[in-house]
Parts: sequence; structure tokens; C-alpha cells
Amino acid sequence: MTAAASALPHTFSSMLCLRGQGVVKGYAIGRAAVMGAAALEVVHYRIQPEAVEEECARLKAALAQARDELQHMVANLPDDAPREMGALLTVHSMLLDDRMLSEQACNLIIERHYNAEWALTTQGQVLGEQFAAMEDEYLRERGTDIRQVIERVLRVLSGTPVALPQFDSGYSGELIVVARDISPADMLRLRGARFGAFLTDLGGPTSHTAIVARSMNVPAVVGMGNIRTLVRDGDLLIVDGMSGAVLVNPPDFVLEEYRRRQAAYADDRAELGRLKYAEAVTLDGVQVKLEANIELPEEAEQALAAGADGIGLFRSEFLFMGRRDLPGEEEQYEAYATVVKAMQGRPVTIRTLDIGADKTLDGDATVATNPALGLRAIRYCLAHPEIFQTQLRALLRASVHGKLRILVPMIAHLHEVRAVRQAIAEAGQNLESRDISFDRNVEVGAMVEIPAIAIAIEPFVEQLDFLSIGTNDLIQYTLAIDRGDNDVADLYDPMHPAVLRLISHTINAAQRYGKSVAVCGEMAGDAQVTRMLLGLGLREFSMHPQQLLDVKKEVRQSHTNALRVKVASALNRAERINLDELAG
Amino acid sequence: MTAAASALPHTFSSMLCLRGQGVVKGYAIGRAAVMGAAALEVVHYRIQPEAVEEECARLKAALAQARDELQHMVANLPDDAPREMGALLTVHSMLLDDRMLSEQACNLIIERHYNAEWALTTQGQVLGEQFAAMEDEYLRERGTDIRQVIERVLRVLSGTPVALPQFDSGYSGELIVVARDISPADMLRLRGARFGAFLTDLGGPTSHTAIVARSMNVPAVVGMGNIRTLVRDGDLLIVDGMSGAVLVNPPDFVLEEYRRRQAAYADDRAELGRLKYAEAVTLDGVQVKLEANIELPEEAEQALAAGADGIGLFRSEFLFMGRRDLPGEEEQYEAYATVVKAMQGRPVTIRTLDIGADKTLDGDATVATNPALGLRAIRYCLAHPEIFQTQLRALLRASVHGKLRILVPMIAHLHEVRAVRQAIAEAGQNLESRDISFDRNVEVGAMVEIPAIAIAIEPFVEQLDFLSIGTNDLIQYTLAIDRGDNDVADLYDPMHPAVLRLISHTINAAQRYGKSVAVCGEMAGDAQVTRMLLGLGLREFSMHPQQLLDVKKEVRQSHTNALRVKVASALNRAERINLDELAG
Repeated sequence: MTAAASALPHTFSSMLCLRGQGVVKGYAIGRAAVMGAAALEVVHYRIQPEAVEEECARLKAALAQARDELQHMVANLPDDAPREMGALLTVHSMLLDDRMLSEQACNLIIERHYNAEWALTTQGQVLGEQFAAMEDEYLRERGTDIRQVIERVLRVLSGTPVALPQFDSGYSGELIVVARDISPADMLRLRGARFGAFLTDLGGPTSHTAIVARSMNVPAVVGMGNIRTLVRDGDLLIVDGMSGAVLVNPPDFVLEEYRRRQAAYADDRAELGRLKYAEAVTLDGVQVKLEANIELPEEAEQALAAGADGIGLFRSEFLFMGRRDLPGEEEQYEAYATVVKAMQGRPVTIRTLDIGADKTLDGDATVATNPALGLRAIRYCLAHPEIFQTQLRALLRASVHGKLRILVPMIAHLHEVRAVRQAIAEAGQNLESRDISFDRNVEVGAMVEIPAIAIAIEPFVEQLDFLSIGTNDLIQYTLAIDRGDNDVADLYDPMHPAVLRLISHTINAAQRYGKSVAVCGEMAGDAQVTRMLLGLGLREFSMHPQQLLDVKKEVRQSHTNALRVKVASALNRAERINLDELAG
Repeated sequence: MTAAASALPHTFSSMLCLRGQGVVKGYAIGRAAVMGAAALEVVHYRIQPEAVEEECARLKAALAQARDELQHMVANLPDDAPREMGALLTVHSMLLDDRMLSEQACNLIIERHYNAEWALTTQGQVLGEQFAAMEDEYLRERGTDIRQVIERVLRVLSGTPVALPQFDSGYSGELIVVARDISPADMLRLRGARFGAFLTDLGGPTSHTAIVARSMNVPAVVGMGNIRTLVRDGDLLIVDGMSGAVLVNPPDFVLEEYRRRQAAYADDRAELGRLKYAEAVTLDGVQVKLEANIELPEEAEQALAAGADGIGLFRSEFLFMGRRDLPGEEEQYEAYATVVKAMQGRPVTIRTLDIGADKTLDGDATVATNPALGLRAIRYCLAHPEIFQTQLRALLRASVHGKLRILVPMIAHLHEVRAVRQAIAEAGQNLESRDISFDRNVEVGAMVEIPAIAIAIEPFVEQLDFLSIGTNDLIQYTLAIDRGDNDVADLYDPMHPAVLRLISHTINAAQRYGKSVAVCGEMAGDAQVTRMLLGLGLREFSMHPQQLLDVKKEVRQSHTNALRVKVASALNRAERINLDELAG
């Protein structure tokens, strides 16, 4: 699809056209409502030694009040509020309980005589930097939560209310929220107004703004950099949530064009909606499994509602993030069991902890020179058996409620597979000794995300029950590219023949051994490459629930045999695959 | 080979057995000569504002004197001193000229009123940290040069002479130098004594201690950590430069055992020496090319002396290291031409600049989160065309003196190959416009060190003249392991079937297209895997000159046909290759 702005006549140049990262598709046309600067002016001063106790008390009272506010919001969540909102508000309230935040800030008051605001922002910065250094982009985004929570406390300390947008109350059309970023609590406060779209200066596809917007199905463009300085309250905006384009005060003929597009898109969605109960079968009768990737237990219902055949990837990091202590067996069991039960017998694939040494549980680990090539995921878990055992016990316990599968990230060596099998056996023995029942045949699979396993896949597929290809990391390692590094991000290329050969090799091996294989990376949810993946032999896709129907539509219009021939011939010559040739 | 220490009877436990990294093979038995702490006590004080000028002058005088001393050493280098020594002393003297060191240190005197010693060590730390963060282990080791040079200047400032070892002058046996690390200048000062071995607390296989020791063929163990605190002057030591074991004050029966090993090893070397003029041909008559990896132009002669068929890898970073400005076309041309002429028509493969954004030419670049996956090597060169063009012009100019080949590191995309070809054409046009002649058919090849190129090799081999497999990086990316990261270094596995499949795939494709392909990583110089590489079809090995005869010996005892069958069958099943089965 061409960028929206390129459709405009060249003679028209006075309209401002801004760009960000579109994270929720759809069009919006409405008036801008600019939210006040989230960053408060923070006063810095040193307190008298005798006032230390009083200042700590002031800080703790503010933390408690902020937490009460959040818990009140959770308890009084309107019925029509997205489920994610409650979960995210709870995360925020948990952060306020976290000792890393309150105790360390109090220490700064006691030891350095900082005032409460200064102590709070200083400790916030420390935590924020720890998150910023993290490998996983989902965890990295959690630094935003810290900032949002701290801002809430600062507001309590200073008595400043959240600056609500100054939009004209007489305006009855859709409201396009323009903000630095939007915390879940802010979203709740804005409720009642008709959201047309969310535009934020900060954030990425895994920010909370994106997550909530996606669950509300509201177009969103994030990472706009400085939109708040360029747009004023009441400006007329066109938002294209797909291309990430935002047009400011467009002339009438542009407005008309976008009204047409908006209507066409709505028709399209309505048609897609009808696909919800349709089968994912190709024109030549091949059945395809479409599953959902989720991050929060609450999202399981969204997956079901979208018609997912199961959960292809449940990231368990959610339980570990934004806290100092580790979640215990019981807490993890509850989370896993919730999802397994919700899916009513459909397979639920839960990935074991995918964090690295850069996730500092004690706050003072050193960051590796190349964390992406360091002690991450299964390497980390095998090096910390107590953490791994707790998770495995919780997983096994949850396995009695349905079909739970254990997915292990970053496998590259056969001895790692053996070590995982042994760790699972050990966890099982522990449960047996406690007379707790579990599924003794729980399936164990590996993420195929390191080139080594994809290249030498045969003995791995033999020893595992299933495979799941994590294209995001697989592409990064195969091309030696860190996608998060702006200097080389343009070299990140999912269509590199080497990447496609590895995917093909993995799928073929799995099929030869009669094992199931899915793709759970971003490629799986990109309807533009659905045909190519079908041509590579893929029959199991796992993606964000919102992408499911688009992919299903492609599946239902495809002929796998024809695709297989075309794709194989290009791969044989290690050539790039021409997506246009696979269309229609 | 079993570690030396395990041969000792268990009942004997009072003898100290230390371990480090053996970097030059061979045995030594002799008395310890412990060199004084290289780190001087540095006084820190602030000078009076009116004394600023005087203090700067004092610093500059000390820098000049240190430089004079070094240049005097270079000029008066004894005939029997290893060639590397002169080159390394010159590097040290260049560092003293570097503005990053002297100007910045003077700034600290002027702005912060530091005394000269304080200013010097502060700036030294800044530079040292920059080097420590570098991706390339050769460049990383260059931080040691900075420290050694600064220590020299500090000695001048304080009037302290280098602490020479306090060994008993009556002792006539071999001297085993024990030091924190050993600068080339220190080595020169120790001349006259019979070096038995070098043992240092610091350093790795690419440290200057290792480079000089290798060129002198003196056993060396580096990275011993704290040997200086455990060994006293005059202690009797046994050094095993292969296993990295050092035995302190061993009993007689252990001494006897090692005297036997030492003698056997000497016989072995003598036999190997006779291989120098023998052909590298297998038992079934297959001719194999054995080439040399070098870092300094001066090493070309060493390569020739070892009987190398050419230079398989000349790392050009030497010219760029330890300086603030960039080497110009003329300076680079001289260096490349020196090597090409020295090799008398044998091929000389020069790798274009392999540095990354972490090599900060202006001293203030930020380090990437994952530098190994960032803007490195050809990516960096294509992003800095002025640097790349200068090097390409120098390379083309040197091509008239023999057979020069251009080797491009970190190629992963076909568009990079096209960009390189175009850059070379542009450099050629520049030379044409200046009426400078060059070889219009200079061969252009790529390092195969990123999985992507190895996996989708066919179109690359079609468009290139030759390939060179850089196993070190290829292993790191294929396994997603940073070998420099101690937490995961044990997962670095050159024998992983995935690695061997990629090497095999690359060699087969090159042979199918009639293009030459070499391995220039560490595997090529490891005689233990020579047979396996022959079995993979490799016919061109490039390694450190010192490893050449060992590999030649293996080649001359191998049957390629038998090896090929055994290796192919294991690779087919993606199994580990059993090296023992390939022996004999």
C-alpha cells in the first residue's frame, strides 16, 4: 500500500503532514484534543536533617494515595472499558508497592536529604534506565509505566490534577487525543468522549497506548516525536493508523478522499467480521490453524472472541515485570490456569521466561556488551534453576485444566533440550511428592529463533514435540542486525532468501517428522506475506488477535499447490520472492 | 590433550598449580623473575591557577622525553630483535603524539587544575574505556597500549625507572618473566637474559605480549589473574604454553616428567621445521593452499619465512588504531604496497576496514546496545564513503605491485555487494583522472561471517571473485553467542553441526561456481580440525604463520576421499562430527 500522503496533488503543500508508527489500523477524522505536558516541573532542594522522617512520611502518603486512586479506578471500571485497562492499572498499582521504588526513594531522602520529589524522580530514572537497557522490546516499553506512575505520585505531591485536553465541549465529533503518551488511567479519565484516534510523541508497537488502543480498536499512531508542539487544540486531523500519516487541517478535497477511504475501510471490516465463524481453509481445501499471541491472561477472551484456534504464544514475562520480587508458584499457576481454562480445551502454548541478564532483579547486574548474544531466555533459566523450577511447577500444575504446551525460547544446542527435559522431570517429581496431579504428557517445544537450530533442525525436531518459529529474532541473528539500532534498522529484511530458506527448512523437517510447527513472529500476522508462508508449507500461524481475520481472508483466497511451486523455485535459486507474483 | 596438571599423582598437593590462557605453545623450566608493579602510585592534587602553564609544560616535556626514549629504542633495535617489536614500539610512540592524549590531558590541567599525573591518568582512563567497549578483540587489546604508554610517561614525570626483575644474577638458566603485562619496551630492556617464557596477569591471545612472544617463539601464558602475588623471585616454574598450566616449585619427579616432554616437543618442532619446504599435498595427491593471516605489514616476511602461499587475511585496522586522525591515501598505499611487494607475486588478500561505531574517531560516539549487531565493517564503510574511498584508492594503487585482492567484511545483502563494486569503480575513476595506474581486474571477495550470506550463498558467489569464511564471527552469529561474554562463552562451539553445514554449503557453492574459497578464522589454524575441514572440501587455509607447519603436517597425512565420505554422512544427519574417527 502506498503511503496516504503520496495521493495528494503536488501543488498542495501548505497542509502539515506528520508521520509516526501506525500501530492500530483504521482511519479517523476529527478535532485534536492536546493533553497537557505529562512531565511536571520537579522542584529539587535539600531538606533539613531533622525533617527526614517527615519527608519520608510525605512521600509514603503520596504513594499510598496514588495507589488508592488506581485501585479505586480498577474497582469501578466501567463495564465497557477494555479488559486490558484493568490489567494495566493493576500493574501501575503494583509498581507503587514495589520496594525498589519506595524504599530506594526513602533512602535518598535519608542519606542525601533530597526532597521527596527529587528522590522519587532520581530513583525513577534509575529504574527507567534499567528497563531501557533491556533486550525484549516488550519489557523495554515497561519503562514507560514507571514514568507514568511517578508522574501520578508527583501530581499528588504537588496537588496538580491531570491536565485534561482543552477541547471545545460544544464539539460533538470524534476526538483525536494528542499526547506525550497516554497512561491507562488517563484513558479512563477521558472516557465519555468519543475517541477517534490516539497520537503520541513516545511509544512503540508494544507500548501500553498501543495495547489499549488495539483492544479498543481505535486507530493509533505512536512515536510521532513532537506532534504536541505542532498541533493545537481544535485542529482538524486526518489519521491513517496503517501508514502512520497524520494530516493537519487538510483542505476539503483531501477530507473527502479520506471520508471515502474511511467508509471503504469500514465496509471491509464488516465483511471481515463475517469471516469470524468461517473456517480457515484454502481454495484447495487445506485446513490452516490460526492462533493468538497474548501477553496478559485477560487477553485470552479477546483471542477466543476473534475465533482463534488456540494460544500460539503466551509470553510469561508479564508476571515478572515491574517488580522486585519473583512471582511464586501459586501466583504463576493462577495466571497460567486462567488462560488454559478460558481457552476451553484449545491448545495454550506458554513460553518460559524470556529475559536476560539485563533484567536486573537485584538492580545491580552489569549489562553485557552484546546482551542479544548473552545470557538470555533458556540460557538464563538453566543458569537460575530455582527460578526455572518454580515456573515449570506452575506450568505443570496448570496443565490439568486443558491442553497446555511448554515453549522454550533461544534453544541452540541439543544439550539444552536435554537439560530442559530433565528440569521438567524434576518439577514433576516435586509435584508427585506433594501429591499434586499434572499432565504427564505435556508437550515441550522450542522456539526456532537462533540460526543454529534452524540449520541443524533434524535432531531437535526428533527430540521435541513441536516447534514455533520466532521470525523477529531469527531475522536479527541471521542478518546480524539489531532492529532496535537505528543505524542498521534498514538492513532488517524479513524477505531475505536466507531467512526464508531457514523457515522452509524448519517447516519441511517438522512435517517429515510429523511434528507441529507454527510461526509466531510478526510475519505470521502480516497478511501481505500469508501466501508466501503458505507457499513455504506453513499451516499454523500465531499472531495478535486483531490480525486474525485479515490473515484468514488471505488463507481462504489461496491455492497452496500453486504457491508451493512458485516459492520453491525462487528459494532454490536463493532469490527474493516476488510477493506480487503470489497475489490473486 | 589432557591438562598437564592431571598427570600428577593425587597424593601430591602442596605444589602450586596455576592456570591461564596458553598463547604460545612449548615448555619452559626456569626461575621466576617478577617484574615490579607496572601501576605506579599516582599523586592527585590541584595546582594553583597561576601554575597551569608550567604544569602543561611539565606534561609536554615528559611526553616528549618518553617519545624520544621510544624512538631511540626503535632506531637502535638489535638485529636479532623480533620485527614486531619495532612496529609495536612505533605504535607506542605514535600514541604519545596523539592529540586525544596530550591535548585533552592539558585541558584537564587548564580547566580543572589537575596536576599532570592526574590529568594524564584521567584521560588515559577515558581512552581505555573507549577501547574496552570495542567489538573487535584485536582493537580491544589496544587499550593495553594506552596504559603502557601512560605508565612510561608517569615514570618520566616521577623519575622512577622501570622496575627490572630482581633475579639472582648468578643464575644462568632460563628466565621466566612474571609481570602484570609486558610492554614491547620492557621486553627490549630485558634483552640479554635468556627468556624461557612470559607469564602475565593481563592480556589475551591478541595482546602485544602474545604477539611478540609468538614472533620470538617463546612459550607464553597470559590472563593469569594474580600470578604476581603468588610467585616470588627465584621460584622454580614449569610452564606449559599449550594448556596454560604453570607449576610452582614442583618436586623432582614432576620436573623430570616435564624435561622429557620438553625434549620430545623440541624433537617434534625440529621435524616440523623440515616440512617448511615440503609441499602441502594430501596422501591422495590433493594440493592444498596454506596462507598467512597478518596484522602488521612487517609480518609479511614472517609469513614468507614460514612458507606461506600468500596472505589470506591482512587486517587493515592496524593503520587506524590508536590515533585520532585517519590515515591518508598515501600512508595506506605505502602499507599495502609493502606487503604486496614482500610477497613477490603471491596473492595478498587485504580486508577493508572492519571497525564499528564503537571505534570512536571523534571520541564521543555512543556505543550501540548490541555493537556486534550494529553499524560495523562494510556497513560502517558504506555509511562513511570518504573513509571507504580513501582506502579503496590506496588498495587499487598498491595492486600494481603484485596480486592484491580486496576482501569485504560483514556482507549479508546483495545490494551491499553492488554498492562495493560501485565504490571500487568510483575509486578507479578517481585514479584514472589522476593518471595513476592500477589493476583493473583486481579481485573482490566477501567474508562469509554472517549466517545470511552462507545460507543464501549462490547469488553472492556468482557476483564475487572469491570467498573467505570468517569462522569466529560466523560461529558467534549462528549460535547467537558473544564469545567475549563470560556468561555464555561455554556455548561457543565451532563443532556445532549448524556451523559445519554453513561452511560445507559455502565451500560447495564456491566450487560449483569455480571460485576460490578459504577459511581464515581460528579453525583454519587449529591442526586438530584440519582433517575435518579437508573433509568439508576446504582446499585453502589461512592462519597465523606459526600454525602453518602443524597444519601442513596434518594435510600431508590425510586422505581427502575417505574424510569427505565420513564428514558428509555426519552432516547429513546434522550430527556432531567425531574428530577421533577422522584421525589416522
